[in-house]
Amino acid sequence: MILPVDGRMPIDASLQDQATLDEPARQGASRVEWIRSRMPLMRSVREEFEKSRPFQDLRIGVSLHIEPKTAVLLEVLQAGGADIVGTGNFGSTQDDVAAWLRTLGIEVLGRRDDTFDAHQRNLEGVMDAKPDVLLDNGADLAAEAVRRGVAGSIIGATEETTSGGNRLRGEIGDRLTFPCIVINDSPLKAIAENRHAVGQSVVESFMRITNLMIPGRRFVVAGYGWCGRGIAQCFRAFGGKVAIVEIDEIKALEACFDGCRVGRLEDFLDWGEVFVTATGARHAITAGHARRMTDGAVLMNAGHFPWEIEVDGIRAAATGARTMGDAVERLDLHGGRHIVLVAEGRMVNLAGHAPKGNSIASMDLGFTLQAFSLQRLLDGRALAAGAQPVPDDINRRICRMMMEAMGSAL
Amino acid sequence: MILPVDGRMPIDASLQDQATLDEPARQGASRVEWIRSRMPLMRSVREEFEKSRPFQDLRIGVSLHIEPKTAVLLEVLQAGGADIVGTGNFGSTQDDVAAWLRTLGIEVLGRRDDTFDAHQRNLEGVMDAKPDVLLDNGADLAAEAVRRGVAGSIIGATEETTSGGNRLRGEIGDRLTFPCIVINDSPLKAIAENRHAVGQSVVESFMRITNLMIPGRRFVVAGYGWCGRGIAQCFRAFGGKVAIVEIDEIKALEACFDGCRVGRLEDFLDWGEVFVTATGARHAITAGHARRMTDGAVLMNAGHFPWEIEVDGIRAAATGARTMGDAVERLDLHGGRHIVLVAEGRMVNLAGHAPKGNSIASMDLGFTLQAFSLQRLLDGRALAAGAQPVPDDINRRICRMMMEAMGSAL
Amino acid sequence: MILPVDGRMPIDASLQDQATLDEPARQGASRVEWIRSRMPLMRSVREEFEKSRPFQDLRIGVSLHIEPKTAVLLEVLQAGGADIVGTGNFGSTQDDVAAWLRTLGIEVLGRRDDTFDAHQRNLEGVMDAKPDVLLDNGADLAAEAVRRGVAGSIIGATEETTSGGNRLRGEIGDRLTFPCIVINDSPLKAIAENRHAVGQSVVESFMRITNLMIPGRRFVVAGYGWCGRGIAQCFRAFGGKVAIVEIDEIKALEACFDGCRVGRLEDFLDWGEVFVTATGARHAITAGHARRMTDGAVLMNAGHFPWEIEVDGIRAAATGARTMGDAVERLDLHGGRHIVLVAEGRMVNLAGHAPKGNSIASMDLGFTLQAFSLQRLLDGRALAAGAQPVPDDINRRICRMMMEAMGSAL
Amino acid sequence: MILPVDGRMPIDASLQDQATLDEPARQGASRVEWIRSRMPLMRSVREEFEKSRPFQDLRIGVSLHIEPKTAVLLEVLQAGGADIVGTGNFGSTQDDVAAWLRTLGIEVLGRRDDTFDAHQRNLEGVMDAKPDVLLDNGADLAAEAVRRGVAGSIIGATEETTSGGNRLRGEIGDRLTFPCIVINDSPLKAIAENRHAVGQSVVESFMRITNLMIPGRRFVVAGYGWCGRGIAQCFRAFGGKVAIVEIDEIKALEACFDGCRVGRLEDFLDWGEVFVTATGARHAITAGHARRMTDGAVLMNAGHFPWEIEVDGIRAAATGARTMGDAVERLDLHGGRHIVLVAEGRMVNLAGHAPKGNSIASMDLGFTLQAFSLQRLLDGRALAAGAQPVPDDINRRICRMMMEAMGSAL
Repeated sequence: MILPVDGRMPIDASLQDQATLDEPARQGASRVEWIRSRMPLMRSVREEFEKSRPFQDLRIGVSLHIEPKTAVLLEVLQAGGADIVGTGNFGSTQDDVAAWLRTLGIEVLGRRDDTFDAHQRNLEGVMDAKPDVLLDNGADLAAEAVRRGVAGSIIGATEETTSGGNRLRGEIGDRLTFPCIVINDSPLKAIAENRHAVGQSVVESFMRITNLMIPGRRFVVAGYGWCGRGIAQCFRAFGGKVAIVEIDEIKALEACFDGCRVGRLEDFLDWGEVFVTATGARHAITAGHARRMTDGAVLMNAGHFPWEIEVDGIRAAATGARTMGDAVERLDLHGGRHIVLVAEGRMVNLAGHAPKGNSIASMDLGFTLQAFSLQRLLDGRALAAGAQPVPDDINRRICRMMMEAMGSAL
Repeated sequence: MILPVDGRMPIDASLQDQATLDEPARQGASRVEWIRSRMPLMRSVREEFEKSRPFQDLRIGVSLHIEPKTAVLLEVLQAGGADIVGTGNFGSTQDDVAAWLRTLGIEVLGRRDDTFDAHQRNLEGVMDAKPDVLLDNGADLAAEAVRRGVAGSIIGATEETTSGGNRLRGEIGDRLTFPCIVINDSPLKAIAENRHAVGQSVVESFMRITNLMIPGRRFVVAGYGWCGRGIAQCFRAFGGKVAIVEIDEIKALEACFDGCRVGRLEDFLDWGEVFVTATGARHAITAGHARRMTDGAVLMNAGHFPWEIEVDGIRAAATGARTMGDAVERLDLHGGRHIVLVAEGRMVNLAGHAPKGNSIASMDLGFTLQAFSLQRLLDGRALAAGAQPVPDDINRRICRMMMEAMGSAL
Repeated sequence: MILPVDGRMPIDASLQDQATLDEPARQGASRVEWIRSRMPLMRSVREEFEKSRPFQDLRIGVSLHIEPKTAVLLEVLQAGGADIVGTGNFGSTQDDVAAWLRTLGIEVLGRRDDTFDAHQRNLEGVMDAKPDVLLDNGADLAAEAVRRGVAGSIIGATEETTSGGNRLRGEIGDRLTFPCIVINDSPLKAIAENRHAVGQSVVESFMRITNLMIPGRRFVVAGYGWCGRGIAQCFRAFGGKVAIVEIDEIKALEACFDGCRVGRLEDFLDWGEVFVTATGARHAITAGHARRMTDGAVLMNAGHFPWEIEVDGIRAAATGARTMGDAVERLDLHGGRHIVLVAEGRMVNLAGHAPKGNSIASMDLGFTLQAFSLQRLLDGRALAAGAQPVPDDINRRICRMMMEAMGSAL
Repeated sequence: MILPVDGRMPIDASLQDQATLDEPARQGASRVEWIRSRMPLMRSVREEFEKSRPFQDLRIGVSLHIEPKTAVLLEVLQAGGADIVGTGNFGSTQDDVAAWLRTLGIEVLGRRDDTFDAHQRNLEGVMDAKPDVLLDNGADLAAEAVRRGVAGSIIGATEETTSGGNRLRGEIGDRLTFPCIVINDSPLKAIAENRHAVGQSVVESFMRITNLMIPGRRFVVAGYGWCGRGIAQCFRAFGGKVAIVEIDEIKALEACFDGCRVGRLEDFLDWGEVFVTATGARHAITAGHARRMTDGAVLMNAGHFPWEIEVDGIRAAATGARTMGDAVERLDLHGGRHIVLVAEGRMVNLAGHAPKGNSIASMDLGFTLQAFSLQRLLDGRALAAGAQPVPDDINRRICRMMMEAMGSAL
């Protein structure tokens, strides 16, 4: 298979008539168009699925952020014959994108300002549609299937997140009678997304939100997993000084060898000017830490969950607070000192004005993992029940596709 | 002098009452506050000027972008005793910041949506106020002073830009009867701004606007001056492949030694995926080049003027055009191919949603050059008439201040 | 435990009397002294072993290179109470170091110019001494123990190499009735040695042997394991252009993301100027490849075995050969072209004049793994029979020691 | 002109008969051969000079190191018609290379073990031969010409070193009645040699001589000129931590922005593990500094002169000294502490076993500057008397040649 080089994506004839669309759908179509034109793997999968129709006569139930990148995945699944009914994550549905998808005949339940109850009803609505296959996020649909006792009618599922995978292996466990492929456990995600895309988008967001200079500045990165080392490497490449806090001895030794200072957070409280969390742990930075930090220290979080910085505790200890510009909050402490909290401790690379998140290419790769994993559930090979990694041959096939799109080949 | 470490900036008591301000002024005050709190050099100058009052009983005429960073400079000059009357560049005045400055008693003429004629009247208005000293930009005020025959009443001036310096040395020449210190010629600007700040903000803007991945991507940078090498270095540090186009043989050899491919633009038209101009020259990329580029190539400009890419010519040759998302324009070419133009060829690091421009620290340094140069015009030392560089002792003093702010010291 | 900072190593009083030694022993003592003074972990282990005497009344049979770094390990084991009898690898015994060790009462069998038969008799001599514990290399001693049927009298062993580990798990298998800890499988070796030390020593050796410039030069690295990526990263850091040949799709994708060109060796034959093998495979570069390489291409091997480049085949196809300077051999090919072979395809970082091999610190870490693993065989905890990795707690303890020696701490 | 790609250098037919040479000449021929085969610029110049014979019927008096790289230059000048008589620097003549040159009919005076008086007589011997043109080093020949009152018969000269240029402009001054082109002032030397070649060879020599690990280690570099920044960048690229000592404020600020710690040497005495001088100044590191350094600190010098470290003073203060291995000397201090001096403070990249000095390519470039500058003295264009830089057109021509040899082109 010869992939088109990144960017060689003609505007689909059927999409040129955006002028005839209603305003929200037209705007959604326009935003999706740029993304779609830069996803050569998705395009290649679409061409294949248009011929093979792996989802013909099947319904896929979807739980996934509804935004321009996921929209391209749903378009591709539809092109493969799928009947789709889906809903977004709580509070993240982009209404213009949903409007665009509905004009294609993809059923999207819910909207951005839904209440939490309404969101629950949307999830139930997806299951009410009796899907054959699930594209799940956080194991919400799988849990509902088990709760309803309809797991027997599900052919299989994919699960986007590691935390969803943990839930499948934990609280659901033996009751999971169908195979469920956990996408985020693929080594390709660690390479393309965690290591490179996250590191770079965190540095971009730091500059975009704070406008602070990197060269010569002292950064403390808590956590030296794939994300943390990507972040550290990017700050160091731009002339920053980097110290690492990491409790795992072996990762900590790696950080030493990579030229970083390594120690406990306590060692760096009066050294660091910027503190970034990427640990996966709750309260990696506490109010007690914040109290002893360099005056004017900037705190931001790159981890998935907003709890790595103890925001409530820090605010409770503050003698004053004020917002200054975009996603920047000044918190005054006793003694005339202050710290600066970015984006209320939420993921910094999705915060502030105009965040873009991970690069299009990294999501193109991730959604190709989704598409081929969904296909694998249906191609007649017997998969065991339960949570399982992406089959190795799929990983390797996508490596080859990605390299070809990047202009290299084996 | 002991400088406060970056960030140790208490909220000025007098500024805490933002609540009493009108809405635009309050918003301006809030935006300025973050910037001010991260300008330790400006703060140190302010403390010094509050005591020495170098501008007591003098009026400074100002022509300068009116935005949060320049606002801090004007506050500092006022604290040094200056009576200030100023106007912005054409089309760039930020009205909320102007409103804030007016509440301080700084006279700001004009607004963002002024016509070009109105802008000219604002410049004349500044000169009508009979300033003693000029803080100029593009030599507009100096030219007007010469035209009016009032140069004799001007004690001296500073000029922010290199192109203004060229105008002073060229078309104005001998008629410039007062000293004029050209700020941008200082070697400190090359280090802090051109080399580091521009390189990093261009990479940030590329990610922010296009959401494209850097690792493995092929970038062509036209121009290997301070800006070009900063840009090249940053893309290479993030895993990009970089080719350089540079007509000066010695700079080109440096690019070779820095590990870049080097050649003519023609050599890279079908290799590059992203083309960045930083040459200072008109039409470094022509419509003829664009026609032969890789399908889907992205074009962006990092140079000061919007003419480095021949935008009109490229558009005239396009068979179709559509805007896709933020500051991204797709231009279809004959043969089913297309290119993508970012920000209409204007400076990419000021384009798109939420641009921040150069880092606060680099402007803190640049405005300290301004403040001390203005002071030098008045301290009794005889300066020759005409355009001249920042006095060496000022450069060296500011180096020491900047290093101290960065936590180093000689 | 407080470790001395690297370098804070007093000259041992008992070693100051080098003047009284015979010449070869004196020279060996002098060379060992520099190494010993830069091995803070070994020193710390020595202090601990001098008190705890874990090897009291036991004999350790050793098969290991006899050179200054291993001498420090043997001194430490002796300080822990061991009676030591050992021999070197075939052809690598450094006679001055052996002489020094003999003055300490450590029995070293053999010398550099031993025949292969004599070397075999030395291995047998070690076993004849009825050791209780083995410090093995390539599983030679373990195999001999099994062959003699004396495995039952061996308490346990350590094995330095991965290939020795493979032999233990393969041809020896079930007959291995004692525990054998395989040192090289520790993740610490991958970090300290394979990734950092090898990459840097290969670049050092390239410069030392060929005197060729790195900036702008085109390097092809075959293999993107830990060693290959270290080599690639070092050449790129010095301004080289790097292409990677790697058959594993996932490693190849990593190389793409790290900014390298990736492809088949065939793709780079007329692009590369220098070819480096680090694959572990036989004949990664064949005579057929060499025939089609850039004229003047330089070939060198960084892998353990000298067979990664098909040296015999290339020589057989050459029309002429001549040695030029240190470890550089020119081989003329048909058509007036030639290639250059470095060090006859043997490990380049041990070749040429004055090679030093991996850094002292990386071996200090590796030998501490040896020392603690030998101790673990004896401390009363039951270990299963057979080849096994270094216990995790030993890895983590050594991480902490190493970080402390590097000035960091958890 | 089409340059041969680096390495495409056939063995000269006339040189194949090395077998017929005496042993020292044969060995010299063999060592020169590798260098010659990797100097594509020299080869191109030779081809040009063989046709144009710019030195026909002229005698060139030479004072230059006699080693394999300079031998290639002398061969090229001879091929251009020159009659050559020369001598080496004091104590550096490589006798085998001199023997080889003599077989070609190039007159080389002196040998390695000449006394200083004998060396002076060699310089006089060169002038006795009544040269028309001088290729000078340290201005020794020019000074002798002036002293003898024969300057009027000299057409012109080139001077290799900056310090020779200073002498020409200083003590010789107006008495220099012929043009003298100072090679080392060319910007190409700063790029190719000072910045890249020196930085890399210093790092290579550090590893080759000390065998110490770079990652995580703390380096203090005194001097942030071209050499110092090259050294700093290379150590940082390999994972080292770098602090800079620089008295020039502007260079110091650059070091800050490049991510280094910056301060006075006193600030880093108990931080640094390795101290490198590249200042050009005498006693940049004094005995007083050494006394207060980290125990075990390593001192080495990268500057041209051996006086940057106060070696005599440090030795005088030592309580004991011993040589340990290759070019490493341990000096004991009061209080049980010690420091380590490398290569007695002489240039580290020429010290120890098997030093290679700067890369072949950087010297190929430098000698092409020599060859074209010598030619320019004779091509009929009037050059002013006195020391002067390499003409700009020669610099630019060589840039283009070098880029072509590196595979790039303008």
